[in-house]
Amino acid sequence: MSKKILIIGGVAGGASAAARARRLDETAEIIILERGPHISFANCGLPYHISGEIELREALLLQTPESFKKRFNVDVRVQNEVLAINKEEKFIHIQNTLTNEKYTETYDVLILSPGASPFIPPISGINNHLTHSLRNIPDMDAIMASIEQNKPLHATVCGGGFIGLEMAEALRHHKIDVTLVELAPQVMAPVDIEIANMLHDELEAHHVELKLGKALKEVALCEETDRTLSLTLNDGTQFQTELLIIAVGVKPETSLAMKAGLEIGELGGIRVDESMRTSDPSIFAVGDAIETLDFVTGQAMLAPLAGPANRQGRLAANVIFGTTESYKKTQGTAICKVFGLAVASTGLNEKTLMRKGMAYEKVYVHAASHAGYYPGAHPVTLKLLFNPYTGAILGAQAVGKEGIDKRIDIISVAQRAGLSVFDLQDLELCYAPPFGSARDVVNQAGLVASNVMKGDEFIFHTESLNCLSEQQILLDVRTEAEVDKMGMIPGAINIPVDELRSNLFKLDQSKDIFVYCQVGVRGHVAARLLTNLGYTVKNMTGGFKTWKLVTR
Amino acid sequence: MSKKILIIGGVAGGASAAARARRLDETAEIIILERGPHISFANCGLPYHISGEIELREALLLQTPESFKKRFNVDVRVQNEVLAINKEEKFIHIQNTLTNEKYTETYDVLILSPGASPFIPPISGINNHLTHSLRNIPDMDAIMASIEQNKPLHATVCGGGFIGLEMAEALRHHKIDVTLVELAPQVMAPVDIEIANMLHDELEAHHVELKLGKALKEVALCEETDRTLSLTLNDGTQFQTELLIIAVGVKPETSLAMKAGLEIGELGGIRVDESMRTSDPSIFAVGDAIETLDFVTGQAMLAPLAGPANRQGRLAANVIFGTTESYKKTQGTAICKVFGLAVASTGLNEKTLMRKGMAYEKVYVHAASHAGYYPGAHPVTLKLLFNPYTGAILGAQAVGKEGIDKRIDIISVAQRAGLSVFDLQDLELCYAPPFGSARDVVNQAGLVASNVMKGDEFIFHTESLNCLSEQQILLDVRTEAEVDKMGMIPGAINIPVDELRSNLFKLDQSKDIFVYCQVGVRGHVAARLLTNLGYTVKNMTGGFKTWKLVTR
Repeated sequence: MSKKILIIGGVAGGASAAARARRLDETAEIIILERGPHISFANCGLPYHISGEIELREALLLQTPESFKKRFNVDVRVQNEVLAINKEEKFIHIQNTLTNEKYTETYDVLILSPGASPFIPPISGINNHLTHSLRNIPDMDAIMASIEQNKPLHATVCGGGFIGLEMAEALRHHKIDVTLVELAPQVMAPVDIEIANMLHDELEAHHVELKLGKALKEVALCEETDRTLSLTLNDGTQFQTELLIIAVGVKPETSLAMKAGLEIGELGGIRVDESMRTSDPSIFAVGDAIETLDFVTGQAMLAPLAGPANRQGRLAANVIFGTTESYKKTQGTAICKVFGLAVASTGLNEKTLMRKGMAYEKVYVHAASHAGYYPGAHPVTLKLLFNPYTGAILGAQAVGKEGIDKRIDIISVAQRAGLSVFDLQDLELCYAPPFGSARDVVNQAGLVASNVMKGDEFIFHTESLNCLSEQQILLDVRTEAEVDKMGMIPGAINIPVDELRSNLFKLDQSKDIFVYCQVGVRGHVAARLLTNLGYTVKNMTGGFKTWKLVTR
Repeated sequence: MSKKILIIGGVAGGASAAARARRLDETAEIIILERGPHISFANCGLPYHISGEIELREALLLQTPESFKKRFNVDVRVQNEVLAINKEEKFIHIQNTLTNEKYTETYDVLILSPGASPFIPPISGINNHLTHSLRNIPDMDAIMASIEQNKPLHATVCGGGFIGLEMAEALRHHKIDVTLVELAPQVMAPVDIEIANMLHDELEAHHVELKLGKALKEVALCEETDRTLSLTLNDGTQFQTELLIIAVGVKPETSLAMKAGLEIGELGGIRVDESMRTSDPSIFAVGDAIETLDFVTGQAMLAPLAGPANRQGRLAANVIFGTTESYKKTQGTAICKVFGLAVASTGLNEKTLMRKGMAYEKVYVHAASHAGYYPGAHPVTLKLLFNPYTGAILGAQAVGKEGIDKRIDIISVAQRAGLSVFDLQDLELCYAPPFGSARDVVNQAGLVASNVMKGDEFIFHTESLNCLSEQQILLDVRTEAEVDKMGMIPGAINIPVDELRSNLFKLDQSKDIFVYCQVGVRGHVAARLLTNLGYTVKNMTGGFKTWKLVTR
């Protein structure tokens, strides 16, 4: 008997499931029910069409119901909204939103891929024609129409996550002044604040006004013109704007699942097992609507990302057709372009490690994206978090102009494979001057972390500077020229590393020496020298450059 | 008692060993003896200074004897050639090549890092002032002086490896016509010929004349002008050239080691154990002069690469100061820029697997470097070799304009970590439209290979096309437009994949179906469809695009 498979939601996870199911079985009846007007569109490309970088709107429509029917013999019904699931009798209630006709479909297997919807905070006045969120093609069309018709000179983006940042950049492409309001003290929550501080500089350099640690409290449409909003923030600030983008986050679409009595997890996503099966054995769920397990902690997480959604959709189809397979947890590897910078991360960040009370150590490396002597090299700033007892990789973050995706991908693979920081030292990575260095940024991070693990180097962090005592000397080992140009950390004395051997008399051996240089390399040389001579020494990981980021 | 460490050779491995040794011990006496005039120079940057891309010659001089002395208190003696090692009495004979003074130095530990020297084939007439090899700064200076003084209109590069290709490009930067002579039927030996064929196209597009499968047999200096060479190849071809670069490979510098009676391996490199120790317990050797073990086969290999050299130098110092550490074998990960393309590889290639009689399967993926709808995406061609019984990764090769280093790095890490092709499917890689795809090239290669492993797809290769019988149908499932534009493989019939279901009557079920499309994806869809309907089907991995590369 051939199976009848209904799939609710026709974007990443749903479309993947449908295509894989068909490839596994030619006779199954497969129906996709999609509330919106499109299936399988390039969700992640929406801001780039708004910016104009992706010229053709059609480029975003990866599949149409017709093309999907032809290729996979799948019955795709767009603008068909599922109203309810009767899981006991295995059928669903559907409404065609064009004709308003209601009907039912039975199923053998149901796959839920409803996605996540933008969270719209309950702010007074927020429902108006100048306020938009961005989840799908109609949202995009509406924003573009608003720009086209109203020609706003100023726009406000509420939320500094992926979509918020991409929208801020897209609006700047139209030469629109942009104010970015973010409740947290930083944009881009997946990275820690010192890494985000590089983004703050980049955003301001591109004339995005930042209002960090602020929340939108009230929105009022100016009735005369109908083209201006007056915004009030929680600190009382008021300003006018002509376009408001709400991008404060997404929440799993669980209304159908909840109504049907499927189990919902503690984070508000549909609960599934490692085969993507919900609490009902005939119903699977995939994509942004579900909770998966965090790769590092094994705890529930929400990961609204395209890669996992596609993998989960395929996996559900495999399981439905008899494979035993299990989803391999989520690291949350992600990247975002922010004007000239890329910022990426994998695994856990320091904020999360602190919140969970997990033991961790961190090292920073600032090194060139490729051999410094070959033109076009840019610094890569990498933060590596690891377990100080085992060397296990807990997470990594990187920011820079070039080669950011590569470094985080490498660490993501290493983490997934269970490699430790010791292994990062020895990774054999592509090297020729245009592409890398004989000792890549990732190798360097592995070397520094391994030194720390083995006790070859004791490190300290910016945080320790607040409590240095008279018994401690803060030693800057950069050149005089660097110190003159960039300044020193207050309280430091300067002895360049290359003059250290002849200036030892200046360092009281009874005191603890806290060394730093520009990025940490010369600090390490100095720390080793002094350690070998019997001093008690710590080196500041990431050096002055990290200090500048932390104290921005 | 503090140790006295002598290091012969002051570039990658030697300099790394010296710096690490000093960081581990402040009291050791460390002397570097370097035959040439420079230490720690950017070997890999030489062709790019010749091309003019690296403007300043000084940019290549990473350290000077003075800077190294100041930083690391290491006594660096350039232009000091070691003549012999007396390993019984632990001293070496040295000659200062400037003063011709001879002297000896004793050692507690000796580290050999003499590198590899260009192999100069014994060709009649090859010793002349217009013929150069490129290993160090003086070689580079000589080539640049020759270009400057003689203003050659035509140059010949003998050898299509890394240096040969980089030199061909460098010479084209000077608008010099270039002929490249290579004994093998392909350039870039680390990759297989179909991958190299993309380089052949790129080289010819940039007006490098290729003479593949040809050897230089005779060189004659034109006595009148003293500025022209007459070259004769082994097929009798003769042509004139004004500059000849010999870049046919390097051989380990083992003369000192051999004279001292140290063990030499079967491939002609110094034999060391996993701690970098030679057959004499007080002598270590690192870098291009040694044999290491191949990561895949565990057999001896020569890997003249900067990354391994640096790691080995550091490791030797660690061992000398008491750490138990072992070198983790060599994958040979490498990359080369060839005009607008990058080509990279890790692990074993197909040629080597065949030669060694090892079981392997291969898949090809041609996919966009990042989301196809975002501007600037270029195809990445990836060849993945794996063990057909275990799924172990044996090797990978990639070529394209963008993102080549990243893909090979990812696979290199996966291979080193012992991941299989199944794991490649699920790697969580950075995705945003400017950087990748929700299903990256590497994920795709993992999916295809896993399908093959699980029997979800039977594949065939171009090689099989030569022996198709009447019992077999070759089915092209591309669109008519593609077929019209690009042609078909001889003997094929065309039914576009989207019209397959309505044209099944054209396919005799008693025959075997060999399917192909442009890159393999639609072929897979068609193959699954037909398989599910009871046909016996194979899909051509990499499709028509691979066929074009193989049959170039």
